[in-house]
Amino acid sequence: MAATETLTAERILEATEEVLRRYGPAKATVVDVARVLGVSHGSVYRHFRTKAALREAVTERWLEGTITELRPHAEGTGPADERLTGWLTALFALKRNKAGGDPELMATFQVLIGENSAVVDRHVEHLVDQIARILADGVREGVFAAVEGEEVVTTARAVFDATDRFHDPAHAADWSAPDIETAFAAVVALILRSLRRA
Amino acid sequence: MAATETLTAERILEATEEVLRRYGPAKATVVDVARVLGVSHGSVYRHFRTKAALREAVTERWLEGTITELRPHAEGTGPADERLTGWLTALFALKRNKAGGDPELMATFQVLIGENSAVVDRHVEHLVDQIARILADGVREGVFAAVEGEEVVTTARAVFDATDRFHDPAHAADWSAPDIETAFAAVVALILRSLRRA
Repeated sequence: MAATETLTAERILEATEEVLRRYGPAKATVVDVARVLGVSHGSVYRHFRTKAALREAVTERWLEGTITELRPHAEGTGPADERLTGWLTALFALKRNKAGGDPELMATFQVLIGENSAVVDRHVEHLVDQIARILADGVREGVFAAVEGEEVVTTARAVFDATDRFHDPAHAADWSAPDIETAFAAVVALILRSLRRA
Repeated sequence: MAATETLTAERILEATEEVLRRYGPAKATVVDVARVLGVSHGSVYRHFRTKAALREAVTERWLEGTITELRPHAEGTGPADERLTGWLTALFALKRNKAGGDPELMATFQVLIGENSAVVDRHVEHLVDQIARILADGVREGVFAAVEGEEVVTTARAVFDATDRFHDPAHAADWSAPDIETAFAAVVALILRSLRRA
């Protein structure tokens, strides 16, 4: 690293992602990360106290990318039913692109995700919160039928679970099937009918 | 095998399941199956022309067990919404018991299922047909809102896909989570609201 550049947590995370991609999750070490950055491994440990903490932070950063990309749909201004369709479609597209675009990186993150279930649980909560926000807006607009306070989150979680086939990487192999778009549209239609007239 | 017993396809399939369970799908051979039955491997080949055909038939038999167990729900006489809930609950229970009861056999069948995608596709069609039957009855009873001819199958498939998290073995690891029953109930409620008032 050029001596003038400050070693930030963000730069370490970028380098770690690169090292994980290059060596795979089984072989990648903190020493590899330090070498890529041209610093001592002690410098890396000043930002992340353990290798596990570093891997957890990389996982979190990767998942946060999805939240950021979906935010415009969650916070948009159109009718809530269209926003929900847009959000679900965008999530499916993001996951498909990730799965299809760089299978090795995807396999790496599958390993990291398996190691960091608390991070994944928080991530799913964020996603469900985004759905809940759209639902609450839809109720206010009169687009969706009324649901009681607590129930918004339960229903949002049900929407997330019911579309599982279209965002859980466990189903990535199905995402190139010729009828997958039809199947997705049918599930979204089923969900919207439920929300509109519950 | 006792000389008086006839070598039926059914007996060969039972023996094959036993051999697969014992040796695993990578090592099990037709010779092993013949040995268990006390017959020559030529006798087995008279019923199943190839090892692949035998493995396919075992897969089919295994999956047909599910169809048979679900039939009372599909063909029952109660209100259609209760039948659908019963069918989905029974499918989830069957898959959970299979996954939890004999993990080795489950792993074996995961391999066979991967080898026999045409059999699996037909199986899913049978399951979707059972849902479609319940939906059609529900429309006739006035329990479910009207859906046009072709659309019954599309909607039935959407119901199957939307409950994927509760029957696809890819999710077996989640089935012992403490909140899985709540999640299942919320998805079923979402689906029923959709069907009742579409």
